[in-house]
Amino acid sequence: MKIEIYDTTLRDGAQGAGIDFTDDNRISIIHALDDLGVTYIEAGNIASASDAAFFAHCDEVKLKNSQLVVFCSTRHAKKSVEDDAGLAAIAKSPVENVAIFGKCWEYQVTTVLGTTTEENYKMIRESIEYLKRAGKRVFFDAEHFFDGFSDSPDFAISVLETALDAGADYLVLCDTNGGMMPQAIGVAVSTVKKRLPSAKISIHCHNDLGMAVAGSAEAVLSGAVQVQCTMCGIGERCGNCNLTTILPLLQLKLGYSCITPEQLKMLTKTARYIMESANLSFDEHEPFVGGYAFTHKAGMHIDGVRKKPRTFEHISPELVGNADNLLISSMAGRSAYRAALSRIAPELNIVGDDEKLSAVIARIKEYEAKGFQFESAEASMYLIMLEALGMNCHSFDLLTFRVMISEPLSINPNSKTSALIKVSIPNGDGETVEEITAGEGDGPVNALDVALRRALSGFYPKLSGMWLSDFKVRVLDSSNTTASSVRVYIESTDGVSLWRTVGVSVDIVDASWQALRDSIDYYLLKGANL
Amino acid sequence: MKIEIYDTTLRDGAQGAGIDFTDDNRISIIHALDDLGVTYIEAGNIASASDAAFFAHCDEVKLKNSQLVVFCSTRHAKKSVEDDAGLAAIAKSPVENVAIFGKCWEYQVTTVLGTTTEENYKMIRESIEYLKRAGKRVFFDAEHFFDGFSDSPDFAISVLETALDAGADYLVLCDTNGGMMPQAIGVAVSTVKKRLPSAKISIHCHNDLGMAVAGSAEAVLSGAVQVQCTMCGIGERCGNCNLTTILPLLQLKLGYSCITPEQLKMLTKTARYIMESANLSFDEHEPFVGGYAFTHKAGMHIDGVRKKPRTFEHISPELVGNADNLLISSMAGRSAYRAALSRIAPELNIVGDDEKLSAVIARIKEYEAKGFQFESAEASMYLIMLEALGMNCHSFDLLTFRVMISEPLSINPNSKTSALIKVSIPNGDGETVEEITAGEGDGPVNALDVALRRALSGFYPKLSGMWLSDFKVRVLDSSNTTASSVRVYIESTDGVSLWRTVGVSVDIVDASWQALRDSIDYYLLKGANL
Repeated sequence: MKIEIYDTTLRDGAQGAGIDFTDDNRISIIHALDDLGVTYIEAGNIASASDAAFFAHCDEVKLKNSQLVVFCSTRHAKKSVEDDAGLAAIAKSPVENVAIFGKCWEYQVTTVLGTTTEENYKMIRESIEYLKRAGKRVFFDAEHFFDGFSDSPDFAISVLETALDAGADYLVLCDTNGGMMPQAIGVAVSTVKKRLPSAKISIHCHNDLGMAVAGSAEAVLSGAVQVQCTMCGIGERCGNCNLTTILPLLQLKLGYSCITPEQLKMLTKTARYIMESANLSFDEHEPFVGGYAFTHKAGMHIDGVRKKPRTFEHISPELVGNADNLLISSMAGRSAYRAALSRIAPELNIVGDDEKLSAVIARIKEYEAKGFQFESAEASMYLIMLEALGMNCHSFDLLTFRVMISEPLSINPNSKTSALIKVSIPNGDGETVEEITAGEGDGPVNALDVALRRALSGFYPKLSGMWLSDFKVRVLDSSNTTASSVRVYIESTDGVSLWRTVGVSVDIVDASWQALRDSIDYYLLKGANL
Repeated sequence: MKIEIYDTTLRDGAQGAGIDFTDDNRISIIHALDDLGVTYIEAGNIASASDAAFFAHCDEVKLKNSQLVVFCSTRHAKKSVEDDAGLAAIAKSPVENVAIFGKCWEYQVTTVLGTTTEENYKMIRESIEYLKRAGKRVFFDAEHFFDGFSDSPDFAISVLETALDAGADYLVLCDTNGGMMPQAIGVAVSTVKKRLPSAKISIHCHNDLGMAVAGSAEAVLSGAVQVQCTMCGIGERCGNCNLTTILPLLQLKLGYSCITPEQLKMLTKTARYIMESANLSFDEHEPFVGGYAFTHKAGMHIDGVRKKPRTFEHISPELVGNADNLLISSMAGRSAYRAALSRIAPELNIVGDDEKLSAVIARIKEYEAKGFQFESAEASMYLIMLEALGMNCHSFDLLTFRVMISEPLSINPNSKTSALIKVSIPNGDGETVEEITAGEGDGPVNALDVALRRALSGFYPKLSGMWLSDFKVRVLDSSNTTASSVRVYIESTDGVSLWRTVGVSVDIVDASWQALRDSIDYYLLKGANL
């Protein structure tokens, strides 16, 4: 039986503290979720200006598997549905699916909305009818459904009936406050299923008891056909139901079908990619997809897994694109490397060559031990492969640099950081030329970038066609923070393609330099093939 | 009804990747758990030399509420119980409680132990009888109980019967691989309860499905009287049942009694203290105890909580020693600012003063327009409030700094970044003193930090009691990246409290400097009141 996955990372996930998606994040996350094969992607809230601007042209995003959904509220109390700017914007937009939330808890209607239950019914009915007339598929988000059901099952169900009668295609039962036990969710879902047998039920749980996944699974076992969730469970307070847990759990443990087995193998990679692209930290203890999820430390457990994986592993990690991890430092097994390398550099054709493969894996593991991670920095991994195979991957050699930060900006707003750099560059005749240049910029990385481009521009004029599009820094261990290792990711673009590089060092400037140098080497090497 | 909390942070928690408790950690964690009032503390494994040394004198640790437990395996196959060094050490030690694990899954007995089921029964029986003769209370850890029960309920229960008959005081049913659904756990526990009505049942769950808490709660509802868990759920792979979730859940949601209401109010503080003392990162999204667990961001949720907390909060945060946290963000209105400001700085009493409130909000919005975000940096917001009200919030003034990065680390691995800094500091007599100092470090932020601490240490010796615990950088717009604005978050701690500060600038060093300066100002200003 099919259970639909409805991702709301970009809407309910975005309500999490410290989460702030850019427009670029939105597009890359949508494509990653589409590749994974989720059924619906709730990509924003019409009440936000930037989200509304996106939905006005959302048909420009071409998807293979998923459909976009916009989130909105019902019309306001005692106003006409025609006067609601959000609903009107949705009606005009090309988006086909709308999630509209309304109240199912009398306490909320009177206390927060400050209106009557009669008006609440009308708000829901008129808003849904308006959207159905505009040809939309409607998900009715029954906010606080379970709290409402606990207080008065009849009232809560009467609101659902109103929505269904007005044309809602799905009834989304929400544990908005996240305080419901799975057992209570099961009872409520079964009751709705019995009272409204024609309804398609969706479940939307929050994690305030650490049981959003358990509650969602219980709802599916009780008759829900769709689960709303977010990548790695991000969201307000303690987060939402975790897509990376509930999806493999439904498919591998409970025998439902959500995505294809091939798509399921992309789960680990997709989770890492989305968290990294949003600069959110990834919990390596995450069930199914975490780097430690199949990491065994106790000697006896390692011994058991070697003898028979089933003795200490509840599923085979390959099913979700993860890998056994018997030694803590290595993140992936040989087969995972083999697959990644043949994808990144098919032209090197090293997959059939066990000796070359071993050399490359050994070199990558050396870097990983220093804190490098290549899942979001495949351009750096490509360069390391070449290096391990003894091939030249450098378009220049660094001889030295000096950086001077002469005054704080708060004391002198015109202050610039200055850098000098000395590099040697092959001149094409088998010889090298030394160049020493200087540059000024906003901060050390910018100053180095300016000086370096000046040094290289005579030899590589095409460099003016590439630039950096994102820059992220993360501390790797926090025992002694201003002196801890940092990992820098740089994303670069030529306006058409994107490539990502990584650097690790105790010094943020040094780490940035490594990623900057890789981004230029990669561009000059791959050229038009990017 | 009383449910016992059995903490195994120091034993099963210690099996988590990257976790390595020192002897000092052990003592401080034991005392913190004792203050919290858990019933049992499993403090180590007799197979570890340092743990064995601790248990030989464990009666030197004086406890008010809790009792210590040591963990061990049964005797080995085909060896005599008298020849087992671990069991002998336990018999001689002053520890009163022993957790001993044995196998309940025939597949494990034959595949991993490589012995017969008959020998397995004897290993368990003889080991338990030996410990009972030594006067110990015995917890029989029924390893892989649920996998064994799924394969053969009769075999799994026959092992439990053997342990009970040999004198075991508790039967601990373990989901060792963490792959069991809560529903399956409930069925198995009910069955054991029926078949062995005199047994005291304990539950030990792992989190490989993200459901260790749900499984443990289901076990209690089915008859278990004790829950084994770890602080913040640390442990091998995806961790163990989370004490900070299951304890308040049992007590506040299901009506059981575990610790006193006064002790429960220490939960948040204890969780932070233990994670900090073990140098483990604390997940702010943690249910009940996380800094974001009662943090509301959406305007409507903030409005609702202010009107009636129950509308968007499933429990009152004070019950677990946590607090409401209404986020300030672009989504917040004036009422949200009012609530946040009165929480962050009640002593300023600006809430009733509309003029002051407007001045503060205007100043905060100025900063927000530059890219500052205060929802994760309330210490910086506090300083801005003081500034907006014309109050002095600076413990020193920056006169200037210079930073020199003399060589790339890849060229000279011993290269250090050097900084000089000149500040003026009030000397307490209404005058200021100028200090100029220099420092070396790994990268510009570390070098500035070192130089600044040197300049301030004579005036503010308590500065040695605070340090930075996290550091994050994010680019704000990506059109021209090495010269784009960056936002730096710094998290600081004195080992007990945490505070977060923010800086924004086109220059990463300047942005880091702002956050660094705020973190020090805040610590010196709030002092012991943090």
